[in-house]
Amino acid sequence: MSPTDGVSLTLGQLAKACGAELAGDADVLIDRVATLDGADKGAIAFLSNPKYRSRLTTTRASAVIVAPADASGTALPKLIAANPYATYACVATLLHPAPPPAPGVHPTAVVSASARLAPSAAVAAHAVIGERTLIGERTSIGPGTVIGDDCSVGADCLLHPRVVLYARTQIGARTIIHSGAVIGADGFGMAELSGRWLKVPQLGRTLIGADVEIGANTTIDRGAIGDTVIEDDVKLDNQIQIAHNCRIGAHTAIAGCVGVAGSTNIGRSCKIGGAAMIAGHLDLADGTVISAATALFDSIHSPGIYTGTFPALPHREWRHVASAMRRLRSIVERIRALERDGSKDKA
Amino acid sequence: MSPTDGVSLTLGQLAKACGAELAGDADVLIDRVATLDGADKGAIAFLSNPKYRSRLTTTRASAVIVAPADASGTALPKLIAANPYATYACVATLLHPAPPPAPGVHPTAVVSASARLAPSAAVAAHAVIGERTLIGERTSIGPGTVIGDDCSVGADCLLHPRVVLYARTQIGARTIIHSGAVIGADGFGMAELSGRWLKVPQLGRTLIGADVEIGANTTIDRGAIGDTVIEDDVKLDNQIQIAHNCRIGAHTAIAGCVGVAGSTNIGRSCKIGGAAMIAGHLDLADGTVISAATALFDSIHSPGIYTGTFPALPHREWRHVASAMRRLRSIVERIRALERDGSKDKA
Amino acid sequence: MSPTDGVSLTLGQLAKACGAELAGDADVLIDRVATLDGADKGAIAFLSNPKYRSRLTTTRASAVIVAPADASGTALPKLIAANPYATYACVATLLHPAPPPAPGVHPTAVVSASARLAPSAAVAAHAVIGERTLIGERTSIGPGTVIGDDCSVGADCLLHPRVVLYARTQIGARTIIHSGAVIGADGFGMAELSGRWLKVPQLGRTLIGADVEIGANTTIDRGAIGDTVIEDDVKLDNQIQIAHNCRIGAHTAIAGCVGVAGSTNIGRSCKIGGAAMIAGHLDLADGTVISAATALFDSIHSPGIYTGTFPALPHREWRHVASAMRRLRSIVERIRALERDGSKDKA
Repeated sequence: MSPTDGVSLTLGQLAKACGAELAGDADVLIDRVATLDGADKGAIAFLSNPKYRSRLTTTRASAVIVAPADASGTALPKLIAANPYATYACVATLLHPAPPPAPGVHPTAVVSASARLAPSAAVAAHAVIGERTLIGERTSIGPGTVIGDDCSVGADCLLHPRVVLYARTQIGARTIIHSGAVIGADGFGMAELSGRWLKVPQLGRTLIGADVEIGANTTIDRGAIGDTVIEDDVKLDNQIQIAHNCRIGAHTAIAGCVGVAGSTNIGRSCKIGGAAMIAGHLDLADGTVISAATALFDSIHSPGIYTGTFPALPHREWRHVASAMRRLRSIVERIRALERDGSKDKA
Repeated sequence: MSPTDGVSLTLGQLAKACGAELAGDADVLIDRVATLDGADKGAIAFLSNPKYRSRLTTTRASAVIVAPADASGTALPKLIAANPYATYACVATLLHPAPPPAPGVHPTAVVSASARLAPSAAVAAHAVIGERTLIGERTSIGPGTVIGDDCSVGADCLLHPRVVLYARTQIGARTIIHSGAVIGADGFGMAELSGRWLKVPQLGRTLIGADVEIGANTTIDRGAIGDTVIEDDVKLDNQIQIAHNCRIGAHTAIAGCVGVAGSTNIGRSCKIGGAAMIAGHLDLADGTVISAATALFDSIHSPGIYTGTFPALPHREWRHVASAMRRLRSIVERIRALERDGSKDKA
Repeated sequence: MSPTDGVSLTLGQLAKACGAELAGDADVLIDRVATLDGADKGAIAFLSNPKYRSRLTTTRASAVIVAPADASGTALPKLIAANPYATYACVATLLHPAPPPAPGVHPTAVVSASARLAPSAAVAAHAVIGERTLIGERTSIGPGTVIGDDCSVGADCLLHPRVVLYARTQIGARTIIHSGAVIGADGFGMAELSGRWLKVPQLGRTLIGADVEIGANTTIDRGAIGDTVIEDDVKLDNQIQIAHNCRIGAHTAIAGCVGVAGSTNIGRSCKIGGAAMIAGHLDLADGTVISAATALFDSIHSPGIYTGTFPALPHREWRHVASAMRRLRSIVERIRALERDGSKDKA
């Protein structure tokens, strides 16, 4: 089954709705997106990476989305846009709208008497909604999702199945949360006393902005005293861990498997690569880029790209490198000795 | 409570069922597996690692499983097999069969009217099954598991509690999925436009083969346009993240906490060590082995073992090594200078 | 909403209950905790890090918690304690007690007839409790939590929403388990046979001690033959993976995103930093400290701090370092050649 059960629009309608320049037949009917290679009649495809430009000549798409520089590469009806990928996102959203959830509360859902649900909200089977919690207009709460007491979820949100919001969590409008995400669990706070651990109550909240997307099985802890804050338009992939009292600035995107330790402030419009590890109590400047698999232990004051990964090598070579690394200190000393000897020879 | 509530079989029956050579009393009754050290009457133990060969002389097991080379190490009744661990797996499966789920739908499960369940399928409490979804013969759906619309789950599958399958996911026969796994969530796709993120609809599917096992809290995203594909007999441990449009070849095994970024193709019969990080858009040849905790940023065309981990050192030593590493470039320049001086001296 | 809906106590009552020295007005009423900066009338704040000592002079708190060395830094009513953070934990727990769950079984919960629940236990909506499972006094089972057959959960435990315990798991008293945690799933055990994988039945259990805390989406696998054991007062953060047959010693704390491979023994009172990766079949001495993001492949016999992280650098610098690293072997050879030349020159 291909994703073809969308709506049908003319290329002219798509151009207008997505603000792209139209070239060619405005009336060609488009009912789905596809890759250049996989497209056939009725499909629109896009070219973003010039590396694949030759595919423009072989695609069987009914229309294509291209950058101005690539427009001459095909005689097909087309949308011309400075950012073809963004135009593709617009077109794909129009052609494949998510089915709107049917408003109402499933009979198996358990909704507290004091919860306030907008009439257009949808609450699915086996969902649980706590005391005094507010659910906004057109928001959809998936099957098995559990929302604690005193939470607030904005309008037009989509909480997929089996999300958990602990008590007092706030979610802004149009935010999407994927299955298995846990928002507002206790931060990892304990005091050491006589060799034992004393739990430090985690009393803050988790405040999530508008237009945020949170991936599957991602966890964001509540604050210890203050709040953990995820600002507007932050995008979090799957299996990310955000510890207590962090603040993630607006428009920042974080790829899968990243961990951010407690009380770290990540600036606005940052990009954090997959499986990066950010230590606690750091500040990252707006626009910072951290490469995938990089461990970061210091604050970053000037934006730029920061990297720290050990290159993968054939195992035998790696053994030599790792062994030399362990001796780096003595290697430096040997060089110093050679330099001294050289100076002496010259003296 | 030890795992003793299995069935009782004679050593001869086990030899026949598992294709092993029998030596000694065929009629000794075996009702459970155990370690060499922990075994007593009724138990069968195995020796796989020659390091532990001396334990053959002290074990109180009723029978043992050994390789031909170790057969002379004990007078106990025994099964002799080229691969004792595989024979152990066979024997343990026979002695400790998983209890078959009782067919039928629990009254608290919510099954869409258009879903098609095999009569021998079992759907547990609070499970949710979407529209037009198919569930195969003898397949067991655990408590609280949520299966979206238009999914298909093959025969003899076992979905543990609290699994989520998003819409249009397909699962082959005899596949096991552990709790908290999320299959088919949206991939991490968005286009940057004027400093904001535009969501790119994720329209592909997740196709899981037969005989696959997926660990607890593992996530596998649906494809962006095409599909994410996990081929037959792939084994995924816990907390693995597989991004959109990946393909994992048959018989590949991936240990816990691994992340695989988007559009990467991992070949057949690969082995990926725990906490490895595989970047996006790579190709890994069949039979590639990636060591644990290794970050991989390049495709691999010749199979072999690839490693890239920083050796752990006492913290004080590590500080010296890390500091020297930061100066590696100048160290290389100093060596070059010394070499130049040496040549000059000789000239 | 700030966390102010606690109880009100006098400073004298707090001093007595938490074993701290009182200085100043014993009758000042305290009804919440706050940071030094965020506090106002009715709040108590603490100073733990001497770096922030100047805030003592500007805080508007009604009272503070300080170490003896800092007591002279403020004229406010105060609690003086050797470990102000531990005293803070005590005070915060008294001022902000967790609401006790209402005893009883929610009508939508599914409890097996043979399960034994203490009368004061609370079982929330859509929870599922298996055959012969025991739930202790005052223990709270959250919404959607699934507990398998033959489990045992001690007294005064708190299982948050959507936890899963597989069959035969045991949990000690006063243990807290956060949402999405999966305890007792099958370990990653399979035997290779003719290019295919044979599942090795995972027959052991997961035994969790008393006073343990397990973070959101953390996974702990059951043992293969023996058991996986988490001893008393172990603290596990979010998204940790503990593989089969591990043993984690009492009072050990592990930060988020750590993976521990199979059959590893971590000693008592160890501290493992976030995103560390511990290989299988290792032994870590009591009191070992592993730094964040460190991969450990060898046992540790003498306690101390162990580190192995690649320092993050501006990307351009990192490229030079990584390139030099790949040539480390030849660098060592060049130094050796220089040293030989030097000796020859002198000879």
